[in-house]
Formats: sequence, C-alpha cells, structure tokens
Amino acid sequence: MYILALNCGSSSIKGKLFALPATPSAPLAAVATLAVSNIGAKGDNVTLRLKWDNGPDERQTGPDGGAVEHRELFPWILDHIARSGAVKKDDIKYITHRIVHGGTNTKGLVVTADHREALGEMDALSEFAPLHNHHAVLGVKACLDVLPQHTSLLLFDTLFHQTIPPEVYTYALPPPDGKLPIPLRKYGFHGLSYASIVRSLASYLGKPTDTLNIVVAHLGSGASSACIRGGKSIDTSMGLTPLEGLVGGTRTGTIDPTAIFHHTKDYWTDAGLPGIKVSKAEALLNKKSGLTALAGTPNFATITTRANDPTSAEHARAKLAYDVFVDRLMGFVSQYLAKLLATLPIAEIDGLVFSGGIGENAAGLRADVLQRLGWLGTAVDAAKNDVRSDDVVREITVPGSKLRGWVILTDEEGYCAQAAREQLAL
Amino acid sequence: MYILALNCGSSSIKGKLFALPATPSAPLAAVATLAVSNIGAKGDNVTLRLKWDNGPDERQTGPDGGAVEHRELFPWILDHIARSGAVKKDDIKYITHRIVHGGTNTKGLVVTADHREALGEMDALSEFAPLHNHHAVLGVKACLDVLPQHTSLLLFDTLFHQTIPPEVYTYALPPPDGKLPIPLRKYGFHGLSYASIVRSLASYLGKPTDTLNIVVAHLGSGASSACIRGGKSIDTSMGLTPLEGLVGGTRTGTIDPTAIFHHTKDYWTDAGLPGIKVSKAEALLNKKSGLTALAGTPNFATITTRANDPTSAEHARAKLAYDVFVDRLMGFVSQYLAKLLATLPIAEIDGLVFSGGIGENAAGLRADVLQRLGWLGTAVDAAKNDVRSDDVVREITVPGSKLRGWVILTDEEGYCAQAAREQLAL
Repeated sequence: MYILALNCGSSSIKGKLFALPATPSAPLAAVATLAVSNIGAKGDNVTLRLKWDNGPDERQTGPDGGAVEHRELFPWILDHIARSGAVKKDDIKYITHRIVHGGTNTKGLVVTADHREALGEMDALSEFAPLHNHHAVLGVKACLDVLPQHTSLLLFDTLFHQTIPPEVYTYALPPPDGKLPIPLRKYGFHGLSYASIVRSLASYLGKPTDTLNIVVAHLGSGASSACIRGGKSIDTSMGLTPLEGLVGGTRTGTIDPTAIFHHTKDYWTDAGLPGIKVSKAEALLNKKSGLTALAGTPNFATITTRANDPTSAEHARAKLAYDVFVDRLMGFVSQYLAKLLATLPIAEIDGLVFSGGIGENAAGLRADVLQRLGWLGTAVDAAKNDVRSDDVVREITVPGSKLRGWVILTDEEGYCAQAAREQLAL
Repeated sequence: MYILALNCGSSSIKGKLFALPATPSAPLAAVATLAVSNIGAKGDNVTLRLKWDNGPDERQTGPDGGAVEHRELFPWILDHIARSGAVKKDDIKYITHRIVHGGTNTKGLVVTADHREALGEMDALSEFAPLHNHHAVLGVKACLDVLPQHTSLLLFDTLFHQTIPPEVYTYALPPPDGKLPIPLRKYGFHGLSYASIVRSLASYLGKPTDTLNIVVAHLGSGASSACIRGGKSIDTSMGLTPLEGLVGGTRTGTIDPTAIFHHTKDYWTDAGLPGIKVSKAEALLNKKSGLTALAGTPNFATITTRANDPTSAEHARAKLAYDVFVDRLMGFVSQYLAKLLATLPIAEIDGLVFSGGIGENAAGLRADVLQRLGWLGTAVDAAKNDVRSDDVVREITVPGSKLRGWVILTDEEGYCAQAAREQLAL
C-alpha cells in the first residue's frame, strides 16, 4: 500500500510516493519523487520527472503547457507511475492534497468517491484564494475519477496557524454586509512547510517539538514569516489571503489598503481570468506586483546578480527590489523575535530559520539579515552560509552565536504523508 | 505682529497666537490658546475656549455643531480674538495651517490672497486624504477672505517623512493606469507632531536635534509610530494615506488589502458623504473601523476601564480591542527599535516616546509596552509613569534603564509658528 502526497503549485505539481510500513511506528521513506513543470506555459511542453529511489530517473514529455490544466494531468501521472511495474495503480490507497485555504478547519478533511462534501466547502473558500482553491478541488476530483477506491486527505496551509491568538488574528473591521463562508480574519499560509520545519529542527536538536521556539522566513515565490513558540504558530505575516505581509514574486505584500483604488481603473470589475471569478484589483495585487513589478522578474537570483553589478542596465531597479524585499523581511523577523523575547530568554530561542527557494539559495540575503541582527549577538559563519548542501538541517552561524541561524529544506510532501498516517491511523 | 497657528481636526480647531519677537533669535511665546469643539456634533453647540496667557479664560457658544462647517467658524474665531482689545485683527500677519497631505513637497507652501496656486495643488491631493485636505483648503480660503492682507503658510503632516529612503517608501506595485497627482508610495503623517517631539527632547537632553535617535508612538484618535535616526524620519507606520499601520479610533490600520472586497457590498460606489467624493470602502475603513468597530467606542480610557473590569458587560470586547491595539503597536515599536539597533549601540538610542491623547494619558498601556521590552533592559518607574503632569518632557523609566521611556506633550502649533519664522525669515 502506498501514500501519494501531491502538491499543486500555479505552474507545477510536486509529489512523493511513500510505501506504507507494516508497523505504525516505522518511519516513512519515499520510494519515488515526481515533478511536473511548465503547466500553463504556452509553447513549452509539460514535462514529468519521475525519480525512483535507487532506481531509474525517468523524464516524459506531455502536451503543450498552454493547452492543459492541472486536473487533466493526473491520469497521465498515475499511468507513468504504474508503467514502471514496481507500483500498481490500485495499491495507491491514500492521496494527500495540499490545499491553500482551509478556513477555520483545525484538521485535514477526508474525501472519498462517495463522500465529496468537503470539496464543496473548499470550493466555497475560493474567493479567498482565487488562484488556488478552485484548481485544487478540480485536482482532487480528477484523482477520484481515476482511482475511485482511494481515500483523499485534504491538508491545508492554514492548519498550522489555528493556534494564533485572537488579538493577533482579529482585524479591526465592523461586521460584514453579508453572510460569508468564514470570518474575515488573519489565517496565515505556508503552514505545511512550517510544520515540516518544526519537526525537522526539533528532531535535529533532539528536543520535543512543543519546546521549539523559532522565527521562520519561508521565502519562495510566495514569501511569509512565522513566529513559533512551543512548536505552535503565534503570529504570521500572511492574512485573510496570501496577499498580506512580505513582498512576493508577484504579490505586493502589505500596502495601504486603499492604494489599489487609486491605481487601477475599474478595479472592481472582473479580471477575466479563465475559470476564476476575481476582480481586477485582486488579480493585479496577486499576479502583477511584487518583485516582478519592481525588477521586471520574480527570479531572486537574477535580481541579486543585477543588484550586485553596478554595470548592469537593470542595476538600479534590481537593487531597489532587493532592498525593499529585505526591509519588509527585517520588519517581520525583528518584530517576531521581539515577541518571543518578551517572554523568553534568548537562550531558549532556537534560532532564525530560512527556507523556501530563496531562503535555501540566497546566501547573500541570509548574511544581510543576520548581520542586521548582530546586536542580538548573532554571528554568521560565512563558510557554512555560502556552501550549497542537501542537508535537511544546516546551521549557518558560528558556535556561540547568541541567536542561531539555520537553513532547512522544507518537505511538505513528507509532512503530509506522515500527517495522513497520524490522522487516519495508518 | 502676530502669528496664528491653526490646526483643524475632524471635529475641532486648535490654535495658538504668538507675538513675533523683535529679534529673530528670541524664543516664541504663545499669548493665547484657542480650542473650538463640537464641530459636526448635531444637537450640541459649537464652543470656543480662548485662554489668554496671564489673562482671561473666555468661553463662547456658537451655532449647532451639526449645522456648521469649519470654514464658517474662522470669522467668528478672529472676531473673538479681536474683541479682547489686546490684539487687532490686522496685526495677525501670518497664519500657519496644518494640512494632512502635502504629497512630495519638501517644505511649506506660501499662500496669499493674490497667490492661491498652492491651494489647487492641495485640493488635488484630497483623494488621498478625503476626510482632511479639502476641508483644510476651504479653511485657508475662509481666512484669506476675512484677513486678505495676511500671509498663509501651509505646513504638511507629510513634510517630516521626506527623509524616508526609497526601499521603505516604495510599494511593490506596477505603474498605475492613469496619471496621478503624486506617486503611489508611503508618505507618512503626524509629521508636525514628530518634529515638535524631536525638538523638545533634543532641547531637554541638551543635544543637537540631528543626533537624536528615538522611536515615537503618537497615539491619538489617529495613531502612528515613527523611527527617527539622527533627528530624521527613516520609517513610519502610516502610508499613502493615514489608513495604513496601527489601529486607530475609527481606522482599521494594516489589514489584508483584499479584505474589504469581501466585506462591503458595492464597495466601489460613492459613500455619499457631504461635500466629499469617497468610496464606501474608503469611508468604512477610515471612519467605521478600528477601536470603534472592536469595542463600540473609540474612547481609550473607557476601553481600558472595561478591559480591567471582568464584571463589565463590555469586558470581553474591550479586552480584545485593547489587546489588538497593543499587539499592533508592539509590532511597529519593536521593528523600529531593531532598525535603530542594526546600526547603533543601545547607549546611543535616546528612548521610546509616547505622545498624543492616548500616549499621554494611558499609563497602563505605557507600562505594558515597556514591560514587553524588558529584555532590552527597559525598566519602567511606576511612580513616574502613573503621575499626571503638565511637563512637556517627562521620563517614565528608572535611572539606569538601558532604554529610556518618555512622555512628551506634542506642540504642533508651537512647531508650526517656529517653522514659519524660519521659512519666512521672521
């Protein structure tokens, strides 16, 4: 029996296949890793990479990325898994799906071919994650059609933040005009990543997860930060939707809430995105802003290279984008450290963690952030910070640094599979 | 010759009258202080209090507050000043006006009966301060009509923040659809108050203003915080408009920029406020939210009393409102302290300043904030913090506290009059 953990991004699908051990306490190990790219990229073919542990590394080419949706790819992916002969399709008994918005749900929701009620509930939240939830729901349905005997578990990016206290999640708004599926409040996102990081670092340090006190910067195309006390989220930078907080690859992050009214003509009209009902304002704030608006590209490596090269034609723009990104990041990281320090001595704070594509790769950014925290007794280890590594947990400050710095490779799929074992008692 | 410094709030006009000394270096002293209340309060009469230094304390009752606008009151105010006999109307040669939004202007703008161009420019900014600029412009015009020979100086709440660097004031937005009178960026407000505080504390400490490093919490019905390095603003919590940042008496402060789209039906339509063109969204976020939405009142003393009284029927609401207010305040204060500490030793930071109606009066709030900064070596002096005082500058931490705490009575009118002397070489 196998668990397949799926993670749909805007232009990609990541996944890991796990063999379920005979004994519940035995650790999970992935038997294969899959990655589908170029979804939505007109003129480029969709590609599937399927890498078997100690086995072949297969690559397949699919249809034009501009002519296909996520859900249409699931039969193709499952066929390729089965084609290897090692795993029969019907032996995949459980599939976990990462879903962005789970509203106020405090645990994952189970869906089977005959019990699909949870999907309607998730779809009703699409207005709060217009670029995510609806597509994810279609993906779950597609998997149920191909593999009707399996059990799906929907795991939400909001789950980990259900411990945020009311004074943090409450917005100072009067009651809304109409009935809404969920209250208008901060929910927070990237929770499966944060949960994975808590588990990895606690394990590395050999301490119980509920004693871990850290600030995490999850920096990818979507960027957020979280304040974690006793292994639980007590604050995070994203809000009702993933828009609030840090500057993202295409998201503004926090700005004056009325700025958009002056920016975009007819901001309240439909953006005309295929299959999604979303206003021009929300589309622009989420998809055309952020690093892309400032630097012309969301690629942080490109931005850093140009920012460090005064001869680049794009130098000034790239430097401003980098500096804006760091300024907002320092704002959240430093206020979250202060929130921990208000009740904990610094010796009980386990450190500042960098993760996500930018967090893992941008050594210069990490050094800049840690240098600005030098007053806390933070001392970066340049050699350890600059090296690239596949270590899941890597320390990047010197021994004796009063605040420790870490790079942690997040493993949302591994976390999801383990969460399925726990919730479904597998 | 006299300078009259006027400061129009939403329901009030404050002012101070200064005799211009014969020598430019002689300090300014107010000869009278005026306060007009109940503007806009239907059923309550407008009142004018005119207190002469070492002279009478006069009170006048005017028309029903619901039937009068700010501009109509200027002739009445000037008549009462002249009626005393000590000051002739024509001897008021200069009037300063506090104006909320000055866009990118880096100094005050001069307006005379024959040169009113600046007023058009200010009016064009009304869309970014819909509840302020337009009324203020009408006030300046009314004064020019009554006293055609005087010179007006428009001083802006945005002026002090012109030193904020681009990486802080830039929003990660693409270029706007149409031509706007000013760029869409952070401007910041309460600048005349911050400038007054810098001057007062530097003078108290006997050091040049350009060596002063402080974080200020200006907490009134409008609440903001500023990070001041070398006497200059390097960051502040308000943004393009006064909406962004801290929770206010009726303002949300920072929330997910898309929350309002889900909150208010037809959010883009006109709010129907008399004389002002503003959307339902902007009116609700600015006028019906904040402490009023959370606690049912913007009165911070009432909220604190209820929050501390578990038997109050309003206890839970009031406690949540208080806790939300403190949570957001700690976020800005601690990130601004960290911003200073990134480049300055704590010994060179002159402290954390509380000002504004709430900052001056809410001793419990000040103690809570300073207690949460105990890890920085901050130690509040309970006796000094709890006392009420008319001292302009008052220290509220114990000797030896590594970070000093202060209460400073802001004097926007005194600052404006002095700024007029400097800019106009009086």
